[in-house]
Amino acid sequence: MASTRCAACKYLRRRCPSDCIFSLYFPSNNPQRFAYVHKIFGASNVGKMLQDLPVHRRADAADSLYYEAHCRIKDPVYGCVGIINILHQEIHNVQCQIAKIQAEIAFLGTHAQSDQQLQIAPNLDPNFLAEQKGLSNSFDDSSTWFF
Amino acid sequence: MASTRCAACKYLRRRCPSDCIFSLYFPSNNPQRFAYVHKIFGASNVGKMLQDLPVHRRADAADSLYYEAHCRIKDPVYGCVGIINILHQEIHNVQCQIAKIQAEIAFLGTHAQSDQQLQIAPNLDPNFLAEQKGLSNSFDDSSTWFF
Repeated sequence: MASTRCAACKYLRRRCPSDCIFSLYFPSNNPQRFAYVHKIFGASNVGKMLQDLPVHRRADAADSLYYEAHCRIKDPVYGCVGIINILHQEIHNVQCQIAKIQAEIAFLGTHAQSDQQLQIAPNLDPNFLAEQKGLSNSFDDSSTWFF
Repeated sequence: MASTRCAACKYLRRRCPSDCIFSLYFPSNNPQRFAYVHKIFGASNVGKMLQDLPVHRRADAADSLYYEAHCRIKDPVYGCVGIINILHQEIHNVQCQIAKIQAEIAFLGTHAQSDQQLQIAPNLDPNFLAEQKGLSNSFDDSSTWFF
């Protein structure tokens, strides 16, 4: 007879109650998913964290806990915080690229207008630089890395 | 007499041994730091994770565990995975901005060169588009969000 216990109850070698907090989010066909969160957070903590949430948020919470646990197992020093650092660095690199492009556009615009007396940029959005300023400001709102 | 126990041993109400795994990373003057990681990961798991690392990596690991725990307490559904999602969205937005700017530059260059027969962009790096291509490719290497 096939077992009807969820992955958590199988792992913990216990009966799977009908109201098991794990069963919907840790199905028996993916035992590694529970093994990961158990190793990093502990079964008791995971159960408490799920229990403290409204039912409709639990699936997302289980997914994010699994993601964090997976990252921590792959990178025991930084976990998914390492990914946050990489993404902050990527954003910084792209901001540098934008600054460079803005300098190129400023050069093109100034050179064309003052030296050649041409109206060469009728399609250039007059709010462009303002938008760019807004764009760089938007990074001030991103989550702060506080190591 | 002032206590010499670290924040972890104070929290766990136990003697702080001379070789305490927590004492260097959870000093007594910051009890909340240990309370956070204890709530999310459990003291035993934190101790095991630190113990499994070389000594010179443990400070960074303790910092990243604290950061993750802090994020999970602020956002019990997504934790710091929510920050990863926000940063991915920011990168996507910046990529869209770059595509828009590239279109503006293409317009400026084509219009100026073909209609006005001017060489208005001597300072425009000839490798610019190649660099931009490389830039967008670099995002393919970023960590994949696999919900």
